Amino acid sequence: MEKVFVLGGGVTKIGEHWSKSLRDLFVEAALKAAKNSNIELRDMEAVYVGNMSSGELQGQEHLGSLMATWLGIPGVAAVKVEAACASGGAVFHQAYLAVASGVYDCVLVGGVEKMTDAVVHDVTAALIMADDAEYTAFTGASFVGLNALVYRYYMEKYGVKQEDIALFSVHDHKYAANNPYAQYPFQVSLEKVLSSPLIADPIRLFECAPIGDGAAALILCSERFAKESGIKPEVEVAASALATDTISLVDRDDLTTLAATVKAAKKAYKKAGVEPRDIDVMEVHDAFTILGVIHLEDLGFAEKGKGWRLVKEGEIEKDSKIPTNLSGGLKARGHPVGATGVYQVYEIYQQLTGTAPNQVGKAEVGLAQSVGGVGGTVVVNILRRVR
Amino acid sequence: MEKVFVLGGGVTKIGEHWSKSLRDLFVEAALKAAKNSNIELRDMEAVYVGNMSSGELQGQEHLGSLMATWLGIPGVAAVKVEAACASGGAVFHQAYLAVASGVYDCVLVGGVEKMTDAVVHDVTAALIMADDAEYTAFTGASFVGLNALVYRYYMEKYGVKQEDIALFSVHDHKYAANNPYAQYPFQVSLEKVLSSPLIADPIRLFECAPIGDGAAALILCSERFAKESGIKPEVEVAASALATDTISLVDRDDLTTLAATVKAAKKAYKKAGVEPRDIDVMEVHDAFTILGVIHLEDLGFAEKGKGWRLVKEGEIEKDSKIPTNLSGGLKARGHPVGATGVYQVYEIYQQLTGTAPNQVGKAEVGLAQSVGGVGGTVVVNILRRVR
Repeated sequence: MEKVFVLGGGVTKIGEHWSKSLRDLFVEAALKAAKNSNIELRDMEAVYVGNMSSGELQGQEHLGSLMATWLGIPGVAAVKVEAACASGGAVFHQAYLAVASGVYDCVLVGGVEKMTDAVVHDVTAALIMADDAEYTAFTGASFVGLNALVYRYYMEKYGVKQEDIALFSVHDHKYAANNPYAQYPFQVSLEKVLSSPLIADPIRLFECAPIGDGAAALILCSERFAKESGIKPEVEVAASALATDTISLVDRDDLTTLAATVKAAKKAYKKAGVEPRDIDVMEVHDAFTILGVIHLEDLGFAEKGKGWRLVKEGEIEKDSKIPTNLSGGLKARGHPVGATGVYQVYEIYQQLTGTAPNQVGKAEVGLAQSVGGVGGTVVVNILRRVR
Repeated sequence: MEKVFVLGGGVTKIGEHWSKSLRDLFVEAALKAAKNSNIELRDMEAVYVGNMSSGELQGQEHLGSLMATWLGIPGVAAVKVEAACASGGAVFHQAYLAVASGVYDCVLVGGVEKMTDAVVHDVTAALIMADDAEYTAFTGASFVGLNALVYRYYMEKYGVKQEDIALFSVHDHKYAANNPYAQYPFQVSLEKVLSSPLIADPIRLFECAPIGDGAAALILCSERFAKESGIKPEVEVAASALATDTISLVDRDDLTTLAATVKAAKKAYKKAGVEPRDIDVMEVHDAFTILGVIHLEDLGFAEKGKGWRLVKEGEIEKDSKIPTNLSGGLKARGHPVGATGVYQVYEIYQQLTGTAPNQVGKAEVGLAQSVGGVGGTVVVNILRRVR
């Protein structure tokens, strides 16, 4: 397989973009990515679009052709990739395979989701499509409700208090405050999180990733393309691994771990030739505070039931053991579903090139974890600085 | 890049499957594909699902995880790929890249669409999502209406009569009559086609591909996998090329050609090292009779404005110049949108292995063309018999 490099990226600020449509957001991110990579969009051979619910929310499919058209490069190969809330991570995986195959030498990979101003359905109805429509959604379960089951079970099983789990939100907001493209760039106190409205017991409003609009894009290329263009890439994709699990919680042996994270991480660590201790910075998919805690465990940074301790003891802070979600995470940077996985990789790219809003001191290897549904799909992407 | 082989495939009969859900159809095709390939589903490393509108029609996304679960192999990599009506061709392209990259050695690629028993939206509303929601669908245009513009313009520009174009439907039905998995396995006369109800002037009902439910699946593998499994593959993927065009007709220079077909075909012929005259059998995406005629031209088998002559003069019959749509084509085999591109490749696989319902005498190289929207995406896949 061919080596795959990240040339650069671009993102929109996440928020309620009432004046920007799905295509506007995607084009904005793509143009920024091209500029940041110092190349032209006409150099692209393919466009990969990650998105979960444009059909339901905008009455629009065929995003490959649509975005190629609006980028001014119809003719290129282009498709949409969907894996629920992991669509961003999954589309990165497919774009990686496209370049790794040697068939494409330079591709644009972007994710986009427009969740406000939905013209067809409401967003809660769209999000539950990530779970089994006939057996789970059918019961009336909402996404936050399903995560509430996980949350309660985790607290019970490991004897952990909510105030320790809810700290993940405080952590995210602390870093978002300094991130220009974050949806909620301000700090919150633990008291504020715990006194925010109850959404699905025990989950509080300030423990949930918000709904937002946004797009993120990256340019990937092969060694051949870089050489021919006289570019010296700074960042390489060391590994990209995708794994699934049963789509619904009801089929799982254990609610407090995501088997797909464990599987994808194992594959990715092996492929990249690294271990958790080699990861200098990472972004995890904390759609709810409890998930942030579980991810720290499943990715190999804490024993089961102990992930919350890393947060409480400051081990995921900027200059500590494993700096995590320095972008603000899903909770505070924002979570425009199909774009999130690409935002995460962009953040890691920034960290490795020394351009992140909350820059760590030294970063050679970074990891981004993207989750679809309640862990039905997990993608683990590992990037490495080229020496 | 690694060589990619087709080990086998399986399909469901196309029709109104009121008693089978989306997952039932996919699983049925996948199990048949595994059996036909003489391997087990547990050998799969990835599952690629092609589908256009499960979100709109079944309120279900996250098909990768869903299908992996229902196939009994959660854990594998799995994603959904969407490119409107070309979703089947596009998902084959992605699965091909996955194996070509060397990252995956054995993958299941399937397409599925369930268009009857839609629980959320009607099918016409779902199909128009293949065009631009904000600029074209917004006007109230239907998909058949857009193709009617192409039809009328073609007749005007080249002075061709409808009775010559409508022959494509008669051709398709002739072969579908002998195809056990065709939706409409019976012959129709030209008189019947031309006297069928007018849908969008000049398009008649019997010139339109029907709405139906169905799924098709194939197993792709690498040379390494074949060797280690002691399998001698009979069919190789000689090329897979995907190209886009502007999503809407309004941006095109010429309504009577699909630039994306010309582009994808050129790339595919080059990669496979063949010319149109080397193609022994093919399947084209005749969603409407006029498209069948245009495809014959765009793929290099006739001059512009002359494609209908191939049909009229018997040149696309079984034992003639370029045997086309011997499965019955979209018109008579059926067109469960996201599955169609996979059905086409399966038909070519059957022809190359001497197992097709309407088997040609000799077939070394076959081509399948899959179209999304009114040509916004086109995939050209070329298969070759391994000698």
